[in-house]
Amino acid sequence: MRAVDLIRQKRDGGVLDRAAIDSFVSGVTDGTLPDYQASALLMAILLRGMTPDETAALTDAMVRSGVRVTYPRLADLSATPVDKHSTGGVGDKTSLVLAPLAAACGAYVPMMSGRGLGHTGGTLDKLEAIPGFRTGLSLEELKEAVSTIGCALIGQTSEIAPADRRLYALRDVTATVESIPLICASIMCKKIAEGIGGLVLDVKTGTGAFMKTPEASRALAEALVAIGRAAGVRTEALITRMDAPLGREVGNANEVIESIETLKGSGPADLAELSVLLAARMLVVAGVARADADAEAQVRAAMASGSGVEKLRQIIEHQGGDPRVVDDYSRLPSAPDVEVVAAPRSGFVSGLEAESVGRAAVALGAGRGRLDDVIDHGVGITVVAPPGTEVRAGDRVMVVRHRSGRGLEAARALLEQSVRVSDEPPPARAIVVDRV
Amino acid sequence: MRAVDLIRQKRDGGVLDRAAIDSFVSGVTDGTLPDYQASALLMAILLRGMTPDETAALTDAMVRSGVRVTYPRLADLSATPVDKHSTGGVGDKTSLVLAPLAAACGAYVPMMSGRGLGHTGGTLDKLEAIPGFRTGLSLEELKEAVSTIGCALIGQTSEIAPADRRLYALRDVTATVESIPLICASIMCKKIAEGIGGLVLDVKTGTGAFMKTPEASRALAEALVAIGRAAGVRTEALITRMDAPLGREVGNANEVIESIETLKGSGPADLAELSVLLAARMLVVAGVARADADAEAQVRAAMASGSGVEKLRQIIEHQGGDPRVVDDYSRLPSAPDVEVVAAPRSGFVSGLEAESVGRAAVALGAGRGRLDDVIDHGVGITVVAPPGTEVRAGDRVMVVRHRSGRGLEAARALLEQSVRVSDEPPPARAIVVDRV
Repeated sequence: MRAVDLIRQKRDGGVLDRAAIDSFVSGVTDGTLPDYQASALLMAILLRGMTPDETAALTDAMVRSGVRVTYPRLADLSATPVDKHSTGGVGDKTSLVLAPLAAACGAYVPMMSGRGLGHTGGTLDKLEAIPGFRTGLSLEELKEAVSTIGCALIGQTSEIAPADRRLYALRDVTATVESIPLICASIMCKKIAEGIGGLVLDVKTGTGAFMKTPEASRALAEALVAIGRAAGVRTEALITRMDAPLGREVGNANEVIESIETLKGSGPADLAELSVLLAARMLVVAGVARADADAEAQVRAAMASGSGVEKLRQIIEHQGGDPRVVDDYSRLPSAPDVEVVAAPRSGFVSGLEAESVGRAAVALGAGRGRLDDVIDHGVGITVVAPPGTEVRAGDRVMVVRHRSGRGLEAARALLEQSVRVSDEPPPARAIVVDRV
Repeated sequence: MRAVDLIRQKRDGGVLDRAAIDSFVSGVTDGTLPDYQASALLMAILLRGMTPDETAALTDAMVRSGVRVTYPRLADLSATPVDKHSTGGVGDKTSLVLAPLAAACGAYVPMMSGRGLGHTGGTLDKLEAIPGFRTGLSLEELKEAVSTIGCALIGQTSEIAPADRRLYALRDVTATVESIPLICASIMCKKIAEGIGGLVLDVKTGTGAFMKTPEASRALAEALVAIGRAAGVRTEALITRMDAPLGREVGNANEVIESIETLKGSGPADLAELSVLLAARMLVVAGVARADADAEAQVRAAMASGSGVEKLRQIIEHQGGDPRVVDDYSRLPSAPDVEVVAAPRSGFVSGLEAESVGRAAVALGAGRGRLDDVIDHGVGITVVAPPGTEVRAGDRVMVVRHRSGRGLEAARALLEQSVRVSDEPPPARAIVVDRV
């Protein structure tokens, strides 16, 4: 089938078969399909959509564009490698908590993460706040780490789904990012290629999430789960609230500290609860825990016994980082200057609009507006008065850690705009909204 | 405005303003807009459409991507240069008839035509059947010819609407040809850039046309007329029937002969009538004739007096061709072999499906399936029994002139399939269906 006919078929609302999708993806991978044809097809896909079968076929072709990792040296062959993926939130550092917890419970966790872009943070940026920490492991190093200590926290390697990298670069400059089938295939091809047999998805919903409503989030979750299952991966999704930042810290080094505190049992309740729930689901889909209740008990025990934080120390050491940060937070970078965001009036903090807080963090230098921006790991925002807290006018709601005022003016404007104070306390709401 | 934001705006159904359209077209023209962004936008335009204002702005930007010709040396400054454009038909050689007629009546006709592609023929290919005829005049040569003899029949030069050439090449390989706004802009930018003040459009309708129904043709005609008027060009459209070939000849050299015969007053009625009507409208929009009736009378007089055929002889001579072809058809190429297509049964020829006849001509070598195909000017099809003719089974309906059987089998199958014979004669139908 000629490329132009394939584009015409999708343009006219037709369904592409596996052979057509394979030829598209292999052309993208080996460069024989010109970018201008690929981008025309991407726009047609965005506007015409894809069926679940097409999306599964696209994902599969993207997986096959590179290596699908195997782990022949795993000690416990009854436990399949497992990972978690989040669709992106503000203050979401659950990976740093749940990966060590799940590994401490016997799961194998080959976790490939991304960098932050836009208002959401990225696990790699947070890890790189730890002096010496190498996220750029090779596939061999990944397999070695997973086989020996049960976990590695790394970035995507060039062998994994190369078609995705080429397509993503093209989507970014052709306004074809916001397509559910393309988003699903991009997320899932990288996860499937990690060689996992189980996957837990944390699909965020709310004002700070990509999907603003539970219905849209559920549709995305169902699409992702269907792709995972079609690829033979035991896949589950939790749909969780992302209206205000998760936990109290937004940034990088400060999020590492909060993660360690959570592993030590002293973290904020929302972060601890979500991390435990997700880690427990990981144990279930990995085949490490038999019953749901067992899984959660095992994770809580790993937290209480300190084996989770020990596992994090081990991971940091294994990846070249300074493991002393676990006990000595002064070894992490910290920007020198501090500024306070105060309550505009007395009442109850009823909301801290997550997207604005995330954008404020980007303005300070904690995240990226563009892919080539450089991160300042020491800046960030601490929520002193999370939603539900009673405050008087002038009380501290957030503390901003900045470097010589860089981005402070923009950050302050965003943060002040993010704070909602009401006469009544907001209703308590469960963090997990739905499950797929 | 960044290109990606412009693509996003159209993708989401928005309206692009003049500045956005200008930046798109200038980026296409100077190559600063990558093809992959242009093609994504083209696909978004195809699927989302464009308003009349957007289409006019696109046309205007494409005109300004190159030269807009002026004619400072015209003798009669009250007559504005005028052209005709047809949306493409089978056997449509009206340009060869009406351009000399209009010029003989005092109009200035700087006619830039295209080559045939697909089942429709092209004026340039027909002209090049004349030994020595040069269609590749420069803009200076065009202006000189129009100023001195009133007419030139040439191809598009590189100075005219360069954006259109780049865009068309991209549309061809990205399945974005079939967009009404893009088609309209592409047609009109070239015509407007010729420097004309009047334009008559011949929008074909029927089974052999791009637009199959009068309604669709009328919509296209209205869109084209609106663009012309927005550019200050007096623009009219006739919507004319294209179910069977126009005239009796389909090919190149044979169409030249039929055109000359028509100028001499011996052509088939449908071709003569349409050529006179279109030429008369050209005189009106050019300001050469004051009243509609005057215009038609002038054109008929030019035909009767032989001044039209003399003008064609002058044009041929001026463009390096052999003017003796006007009197000696043996100087035109002619393929040596002849084959007959016979009536399958007795009755009245009720249809000769134009698209099949056009495809048969392409199969013989008279047209192009691909842009780089080489034309055989001597092959073609003569309709012996046009629709309405009473025939007996086995009577000749068409005669095929071929070269050693090249493409004959495919052509024969198409031609046999094109013939309809009925018990009753088909109703007589006017060639002009509607006017805009």
